[in-house]
Amino acid sequence: MQTSRTIPSRLAKRAHYDADTVHAILDEALFCTVSYVMNDQPMAIPTAHARKNDEIYIHGSVGSHFIRQIQQGGTVCISVMLTDGLVLAKSAFHHSVNYRSVILFGTARTVTGEAEKMEALALITDHLVPGRWDDLRPTTDSELRKTTVLAFSLAESSAKVRTGGPSDDPEDADLPTWSGVVPMQTVRLAPVPATGSEPPVALPAYLQS
Amino acid sequence: MQTSRTIPSRLAKRAHYDADTVHAILDEALFCTVSYVMNDQPMAIPTAHARKNDEIYIHGSVGSHFIRQIQQGGTVCISVMLTDGLVLAKSAFHHSVNYRSVILFGTARTVTGEAEKMEALALITDHLVPGRWDDLRPTTDSELRKTTVLAFSLAESSAKVRTGGPSDDPEDADLPTWSGVVPMQTVRLAPVPATGSEPPVALPAYLQS
Repeated sequence: MQTSRTIPSRLAKRAHYDADTVHAILDEALFCTVSYVMNDQPMAIPTAHARKNDEIYIHGSVGSHFIRQIQQGGTVCISVMLTDGLVLAKSAFHHSVNYRSVILFGTARTVTGEAEKMEALALITDHLVPGRWDDLRPTTDSELRKTTVLAFSLAESSAKVRTGGPSDDPEDADLPTWSGVVPMQTVRLAPVPATGSEPPVALPAYLQS
Repeated sequence: MQTSRTIPSRLAKRAHYDADTVHAILDEALFCTVSYVMNDQPMAIPTAHARKNDEIYIHGSVGSHFIRQIQQGGTVCISVMLTDGLVLAKSAFHHSVNYRSVILFGTARTVTGEAEKMEALALITDHLVPGRWDDLRPTTDSELRKTTVLAFSLAESSAKVRTGGPSDDPEDADLPTWSGVVPMQTVRLAPVPATGSEPPVALPAYLQS
């Protein structure tokens, strides 16, 4: 949604407000940065998240200072960035980055219903490793009580996306300098089993690639 | 340095304050998130950075709302996170992430000297692609005038690091659930030359891997 907080002051052509774009970025990014204000000063914490419809969930210990602070209802700014490539122009000035980012502003809704809380934890777990939740023993009542789940609406969210090659000045076109994009990607390597786990357990299908 | 803002309220055993740890994380991470307060509300912007000694530099357009806001001298919170692996325990509750993060609090010093400004831009460029700066035509006075460079002291910074496998409850040890770590890594793929760049330029040595 376009509000004074989500319309970028520069490069507005890179802004997107459609749910599909925002959702795809939030779903691909495993981690977000939660920024908030405490004693008039900025604080920021990276954490895992998961989306359901037009909300995202985060979680933390009920004893977490961070969680307790944002439960008080102040505005929170949540940002994610996926970096897709380094854009190398013929001048330093036009170097850039291909990225997909989302920013959202909102206030925390503490999830109190046990069923929704459990579903949110399943979504966060399966966001990191799809299929993991159903392979785990049930979460206990005690574990659930020790965990706070917060939801944030995506109503005031926006995406910014840069794609493509460098935009060089025309007078630089013939410089004998390589220009283009160095693509970047986050990859998962072969899983490493925990030591001392006896009897050994076969790697589940959802971890085989 | 340990201050009330850099001592974590939880998991203090993961905190590190030595310069070597903080520097290594800032040097490996290409991007940071700059959080600040505007009209009593949190804002966050991802950007590139580079370190020199006990400061980091960021840059932006002189017209950037973000840059102009933090030049006014309010406290800024800069955070970076490198994710090294997903930690899969036998219970959802003990799932975790192996990460290396840095957080720092400070106020912007606007770099006014032309030589320092140019050096900072070279450091930011070479942080993304080592060796790139010397391959580029000189930055012009006009480009330099359009760019603001800000420096932040690392005096009030700290790192948090988690490594190793899952920490399961002893009573879960014999569950037939795979546990361990899925390592994650950010990789660079083969460079893609810009279209319409004539005559073709050979890939420089610093981009060959």
